[in-house]
Amino acid sequence: MVRVGIVGISGFSGKVLLDILLNHKDVRVTYVAAHSTTGRVDVIWPEFKNRTDLVCEKYTLDAATAQCDVVFLALPHTESMNIAGKLLAAGKKVIDLSADYRLKKISVYKKWYHADHKDVKNLPKAVYGLCEIYRSKIKKAKLLSNPGCYPTAALLALAPLVSIHGEKIASITIDAKSGVSGAGKKVAEAFMFPFVNENFKAYRVLSHQHTPEISQYLSSMSGKTWDVNFVPHLLPVDSGILETIYVQLNAKMTDASLHLLYKKFYKTETFVRVLDIGQQPELRNVVRTNFCDIGLAISENRKMVVITSAIDNLVKGASGQAVQNMNIMYGFNETEGLV
Amino acid sequence: MVRVGIVGISGFSGKVLLDILLNHKDVRVTYVAAHSTTGRVDVIWPEFKNRTDLVCEKYTLDAATAQCDVVFLALPHTESMNIAGKLLAAGKKVIDLSADYRLKKISVYKKWYHADHKDVKNLPKAVYGLCEIYRSKIKKAKLLSNPGCYPTAALLALAPLVSIHGEKIASITIDAKSGVSGAGKKVAEAFMFPFVNENFKAYRVLSHQHTPEISQYLSSMSGKTWDVNFVPHLLPVDSGILETIYVQLNAKMTDASLHLLYKKFYKTETFVRVLDIGQQPELRNVVRTNFCDIGLAISENRKMVVITSAIDNLVKGASGQAVQNMNIMYGFNETEGLV
Amino acid sequence: MVRVGIVGISGFSGKVLLDILLNHKDVRVTYVAAHSTTGRVDVIWPEFKNRTDLVCEKYTLDAATAQCDVVFLALPHTESMNIAGKLLAAGKKVIDLSADYRLKKISVYKKWYHADHKDVKNLPKAVYGLCEIYRSKIKKAKLLSNPGCYPTAALLALAPLVSIHGEKIASITIDAKSGVSGAGKKVAEAFMFPFVNENFKAYRVLSHQHTPEISQYLSSMSGKTWDVNFVPHLLPVDSGILETIYVQLNAKMTDASLHLLYKKFYKTETFVRVLDIGQQPELRNVVRTNFCDIGLAISENRKMVVITSAIDNLVKGASGQAVQNMNIMYGFNETEGLV
Amino acid sequence: MVRVGIVGISGFSGKVLLDILLNHKDVRVTYVAAHSTTGRVDVIWPEFKNRTDLVCEKYTLDAATAQCDVVFLALPHTESMNIAGKLLAAGKKVIDLSADYRLKKISVYKKWYHADHKDVKNLPKAVYGLCEIYRSKIKKAKLLSNPGCYPTAALLALAPLVSIHGEKIASITIDAKSGVSGAGKKVAEAFMFPFVNENFKAYRVLSHQHTPEISQYLSSMSGKTWDVNFVPHLLPVDSGILETIYVQLNAKMTDASLHLLYKKFYKTETFVRVLDIGQQPELRNVVRTNFCDIGLAISENRKMVVITSAIDNLVKGASGQAVQNMNIMYGFNETEGLV
Repeated sequence: MVRVGIVGISGFSGKVLLDILLNHKDVRVTYVAAHSTTGRVDVIWPEFKNRTDLVCEKYTLDAATAQCDVVFLALPHTESMNIAGKLLAAGKKVIDLSADYRLKKISVYKKWYHADHKDVKNLPKAVYGLCEIYRSKIKKAKLLSNPGCYPTAALLALAPLVSIHGEKIASITIDAKSGVSGAGKKVAEAFMFPFVNENFKAYRVLSHQHTPEISQYLSSMSGKTWDVNFVPHLLPVDSGILETIYVQLNAKMTDASLHLLYKKFYKTETFVRVLDIGQQPELRNVVRTNFCDIGLAISENRKMVVITSAIDNLVKGASGQAVQNMNIMYGFNETEGLV
Repeated sequence: MVRVGIVGISGFSGKVLLDILLNHKDVRVTYVAAHSTTGRVDVIWPEFKNRTDLVCEKYTLDAATAQCDVVFLALPHTESMNIAGKLLAAGKKVIDLSADYRLKKISVYKKWYHADHKDVKNLPKAVYGLCEIYRSKIKKAKLLSNPGCYPTAALLALAPLVSIHGEKIASITIDAKSGVSGAGKKVAEAFMFPFVNENFKAYRVLSHQHTPEISQYLSSMSGKTWDVNFVPHLLPVDSGILETIYVQLNAKMTDASLHLLYKKFYKTETFVRVLDIGQQPELRNVVRTNFCDIGLAISENRKMVVITSAIDNLVKGASGQAVQNMNIMYGFNETEGLV
Repeated sequence: MVRVGIVGISGFSGKVLLDILLNHKDVRVTYVAAHSTTGRVDVIWPEFKNRTDLVCEKYTLDAATAQCDVVFLALPHTESMNIAGKLLAAGKKVIDLSADYRLKKISVYKKWYHADHKDVKNLPKAVYGLCEIYRSKIKKAKLLSNPGCYPTAALLALAPLVSIHGEKIASITIDAKSGVSGAGKKVAEAFMFPFVNENFKAYRVLSHQHTPEISQYLSSMSGKTWDVNFVPHLLPVDSGILETIYVQLNAKMTDASLHLLYKKFYKTETFVRVLDIGQQPELRNVVRTNFCDIGLAISENRKMVVITSAIDNLVKGASGQAVQNMNIMYGFNETEGLV
Repeated sequence: MVRVGIVGISGFSGKVLLDILLNHKDVRVTYVAAHSTTGRVDVIWPEFKNRTDLVCEKYTLDAATAQCDVVFLALPHTESMNIAGKLLAAGKKVIDLSADYRLKKISVYKKWYHADHKDVKNLPKAVYGLCEIYRSKIKKAKLLSNPGCYPTAALLALAPLVSIHGEKIASITIDAKSGVSGAGKKVAEAFMFPFVNENFKAYRVLSHQHTPEISQYLSSMSGKTWDVNFVPHLLPVDSGILETIYVQLNAKMTDASLHLLYKKFYKTETFVRVLDIGQQPELRNVVRTNFCDIGLAISENRKMVVITSAIDNLVKGASGQAVQNMNIMYGFNETEGLV
């Protein structure tokens, strides 16, 4: 039994991590912590009553080190980088759900997250945990940087096309829509029920902090620099992301060849489901699962590809993928706890 | 008092028309009909109890002609074109909310609506009722073709840019999201609560029937042929459309000049509200109103413009705009009944 | 033109008041204020853009007195009682939407609102504005105490039975369900979207502060003391209250006689709609209207009456009824601005 | 491995059964059938893609008998009773989720379900599967009649009080609220998104078919006849039932003694969670789980008890409880597949 810690239980990702890990046959959750919240987990989250007696403590390095083999950090960005390095130094594996180890250039990190990076030493060691793409590196990771929710949906949707036909692509525009839990448990007027329900809007138009993460890994897949247009929107649902991705080609492609490309690329993957031409992903088929559903369409003139990609932002876009990464890192069955 | 008839009261647009017209000081609703539904309107729509004693009849030309000066046709496409011509011949004004008189080429109509056009004679006489753009023609219209919901949001959003800087535009991609009432009162599994609630999906990707309507009127505004990419999605809300429109430029533009262009273009318009740079429209500010809110953003490289446009699909996108058209046709105060 | 002021524009009731009053033909809104918020009303509430240029000021007695004939107080309880007396003394009419003048005994006020009453002098002068029941007193009111949302639905539902057959009633139990706007614009975790959406719960079970208001006015209608059981619940909708009221009789009654009683009682009322036996009110027929819909059912043994009552908590349960009260106080058409 | 069949996969209960059973370590789903639907299960329900290759067949007795040890019937009432007897005769165990074997008197069945009972022979053998109450009988059951959703929430909430203090109870009134999935996958206007969303209403007031089921088992627990008042309502959520139950006592009780009674009664039960005085159950803590949460309150005069009870109508109120029953019948760990 691997001993697992969760730091950040009071947030949505922490809660979903615990929900998954309590049913995982190869691990035991031995340590639960948060920055300010303390007390019985089933008081913090009443849905866990009769499921666990765990008590949330204020995080300390000593407790975490003594009680865990691997620690999930479900913390706001800028907090993980204060903790991860010390856990690594103590010989622990770390799976970080924040943005702190995703961007390879600290100048880019500073521009988008408005903070200096505090763990430059470990940054190069961090492995980006987009499971289906970087599995072999993940197997050996000590510091796993779990992808952002929007980037997960975007990169899985674009990986086959960009990595194999990158040179045929003129431009990429991502119109993304996310449920409210993507914002975390922020108590702000903008996320109050009467301001979200029966509403819909774009936000951070062309200026969302997930944009450089998407560009960086598209480049890593294709060896080409990308300048994607990214516009997120807030959906009146709890969870789920659907991205509609417009890829302008400079060479024609048929829907059959496109579909074949994707089916082959993800042939052995359990969690990426390529739908038939004419079918479209919907949130309800992926919410509360670790699946990413991908739909494909192509314009009459064969030069505009529309890829639609759906995930649960808290599962495949956060805690589910984090557990999938742990499964890979430990050689467990990759789907354990997730299907 | 102008005598008004509504044909198609059992649908959502018919209901909203009645709601607006009952509070309109210059008209009296004298005739209400439908294809199959009959009986007291406040039984068909219980919200009208104590507001009206109107009784819905099966539509007949004689009754409509005897009791109305102007008739709103809130009917499914292919039905209006059987009725409109006869009402015109009887000297009545007709405001048609269906798609039957929007497309100028009958071959295009047939391709997208899968039906032969049955009133080719009156088609050229129909005036497209996009109020803010075609007001002078609307004043003289006898047969008013009320715009589709998606085209209203798209055309108002694009009119300033396309009509003044059409030559600078490389491509237009419209990512549209609509509430469920846009589908009408269709009783189908896809529109059942458990299949819409907490869900979101794209549909008719690059193949929605409003695409040629958008292209046609963009051409009419700019003298240039357009091949827009249009992808609609279904939002889990009752009403409201938000469109995120990506305009790729082949020349640079600044956000200040873009904003100025829009402010000037709509300076005297009550119902089009151009938001400041940095602000974004949201459904809740336009739902149940006749307003169209427009937001503007531009990319760092100044070559991608993102226009966001929000309306209520049943008001500005259907019945509200239809009443605004009636107000123009009769010289009433243009906002009567609508603000 | 009567000059109207609204104090408390930043709350939901204040917003709905403005929305109604901007379309009211007999008044002009000349003054808008709040406790802390200031600035253009269409910045506070963007839906008012192009509808008003009003600017919200910090409330002062001098400004209110100079600019208004009547002032609506849409303030939290305990704040109105600091303001109302001075406005009255300055010869202004006051319509108070808070709870401050509803309870006749200051000990009861203190018990339920945890505050000493600060305007004991004016308390006896306040007229309870349940329009359909107290219309003749309202006509002469200077200080109008607008009913609470839950009490409005309860008292209109019970008035006929309690006032005419009070002695036949053994007990009254009210199971009430309200949309989120009933809680005001409180920014708290409990009202965040992910904690309301797809959720439902009871709160303040048998201990809600509207309980004594309901009991007091039931007594005033019947000359009998009542000890009602009242349990409110939070619905995942923006607006609307539905109450299911269980009246245990100690004498049998038939559904026909019950229905007749209600039809007669509300025969001349526009805003109370008694449904036929077998029909049930639903929120969607009353939301955004000033109507109260009432359904009636009776058990097989004829001793349990179930009355269902639906209103919009912000309209008939707050701002709509407040305007109806103003219409009565000024002798305007009672439905002006409301249908 | 026990071989399991599901008949009625196209309905919501069938879907949830499959979802649970695919993760159950002691059984294998070997047979899936429906009345009219056929084909791959992951086409009928796309969420199962990559989770199962099962194909839904038209139901035949031969196939079911050959391929299953136990068969779940997730069929509309009046259909199960045509099938269950033959499966029993073939030596199979049957778990019936319909109402067909719940009511012990065929006259009562006929009155409420408008059909003659067609399997009177097996009716007495059916064991009512309210797990926590009838566990010892369930262990030996061949024909298991799974409780209705509303009765499950009501009976678990009332069992301690009724079975131990039945003589102190003067009356029971149940105000029940259910999500839409309780109605099954019915395609009808009343369940269309625009008629449910932002809406709420009572239905079948004092005349719902679950009323006699509740009364019958209350009697079985207490040896006393009950005439409960039951009023269901439709909530704008997918899943979840919350019942607010008003128990009028004819003797006083304290909240401490009431709470103690419930804590003791359910002390060893995993799936019934008795909340502390002052806490209230909410749907979001039970939805998609097999838990039943119970809250308790008592009036100032100590004679009105208010019990609130929350379950997921499709899990503890249907498929989850059905699997729990199977676990009991086969001696599996009772929580297998469910926590």
